Amino acid sequence: MPKRIEVCLTPALLHLYDISESIVVVIDVLRATSSMVYGIDNGATAIIPVAQVEDCLGYADKGFLLAAERDGCVVEGYDFGNSPFSYSRDKIEGKTIVLTTTNGTKALHMARESASQVVVGAFLNLDALCEWLKVQDKSVLLLCAGWKDQFNIEDTLFAGAVVAELRKEFTHYDDSSVAAEDLYLLAKDDLRTYLHKSSHSHRLAELNIEEDVRFCLQLNLCKAIPVLVGDALVAL
Amino acid sequence: MPKRIEVCLTPALLHLYDISESIVVVIDVLRATSSMVYGIDNGATAIIPVAQVEDCLGYADKGFLLAAERDGCVVEGYDFGNSPFSYSRDKIEGKTIVLTTTNGTKALHMARESASQVVVGAFLNLDALCEWLKVQDKSVLLLCAGWKDQFNIEDTLFAGAVVAELRKEFTHYDDSSVAAEDLYLLAKDDLRTYLHKSSHSHRLAELNIEEDVRFCLQLNLCKAIPVLVGDALVAL
Repeated sequence: MPKRIEVCLTPALLHLYDISESIVVVIDVLRATSSMVYGIDNGATAIIPVAQVEDCLGYADKGFLLAAERDGCVVEGYDFGNSPFSYSRDKIEGKTIVLTTTNGTKALHMARESASQVVVGAFLNLDALCEWLKVQDKSVLLLCAGWKDQFNIEDTLFAGAVVAELRKEFTHYDDSSVAAEDLYLLAKDDLRTYLHKSSHSHRLAELNIEEDVRFCLQLNLCKAIPVLVGDALVAL
Repeated sequence: MPKRIEVCLTPALLHLYDISESIVVVIDVLRATSSMVYGIDNGATAIIPVAQVEDCLGYADKGFLLAAERDGCVVEGYDFGNSPFSYSRDKIEGKTIVLTTTNGTKALHMARESASQVVVGAFLNLDALCEWLKVQDKSVLLLCAGWKDQFNIEDTLFAGAVVAELRKEFTHYDDSSVAAEDLYLLAKDDLRTYLHKSSHSHRLAELNIEEDVRFCLQLNLCKAIPVLVGDALVAL
């Protein structure tokens, strides 16, 4: 079986891919998967992604931290949302976090249904992720979480960064890999400026989280690769 | 209502867009919409896109030409498929063609369900299409037919060409417009070479239709804009 590297541009296209033998990398760069990578890297015991805000409440009496984001904001009454600054070592070391976000946790759940293995990627762990993928004898699907099933630029750019590092290792790739790689090569010298062209950039500007965005666009700050084991993301 | 220009990267994402007030441009550059543009430009009375190969047969006794393509090949027993060379003036002037193709006719039917107006675009009529869109007081959705619901490069490049000509005329655009435009700007000086990177290119190479591809990548050979009126594409 030839090793494929492919990019699924939004979760709404996931049904088109056979991922039963593949590693799926879930990508929600602004900000869910960046925070997951940073949290696991900072010693969080586990991060449990749940689909609905109400699902978090089932974990309330277990001593877990509860994190909920919808449309870019922390849901009222929760410990925090998906800002990476909430996932620093002093706040989360040795803790388990239950997290729901607009797009990222949904993509994780969809991937889990049929993938051979599910991991989490972000610019923060780009090299660590690529080094690990390189030595697995499996096809790779890069799953962009997008924005409410729409294509988005930032997740596509990260998928392109992975393709740029790995394409030579794979015998088959698809058109979306070609497009993602070329967009990344175009944008990589100044990701922040490039993202100003995107729609999410305007949404994020309204949320006043410019510092979060800058943080999430840093390359290789972390070594951790969160992997889904049962219901929880833990360090690989 | 602000005028939007948006790119729907595959028909599988069409449900995400509100097109009730929009002009939808259906794009299947290799080769369905190129042949439609060329055929209408060459004086075909009408081209009737139908979903299934069997649907063509219902028109068999009306003196229409029957054209059917599946997976890149002419279906056995039909007059022709979707090679643009079958749509030259000597073959189709004054004729009505009933056509079914793998991706293009499906996208046309999906668009027809809810769009305000449906037209057909290809590199062959790029400028004529853009000049016309510019003076309509409507939002525009560029609908890439893709390949069996997958993203493809060639349709995205054409969508990007339209965005590059029109973006300044529109107040809103989406992330896929930004991506499509940048890919087109990267590829435009040598579309043929760029397409060699794509998966469809490999499929097409196997079909031995290099001449068709070169033909379809010519800019502005035609003035015609096919528009869907009832069941048929006719000259606008």
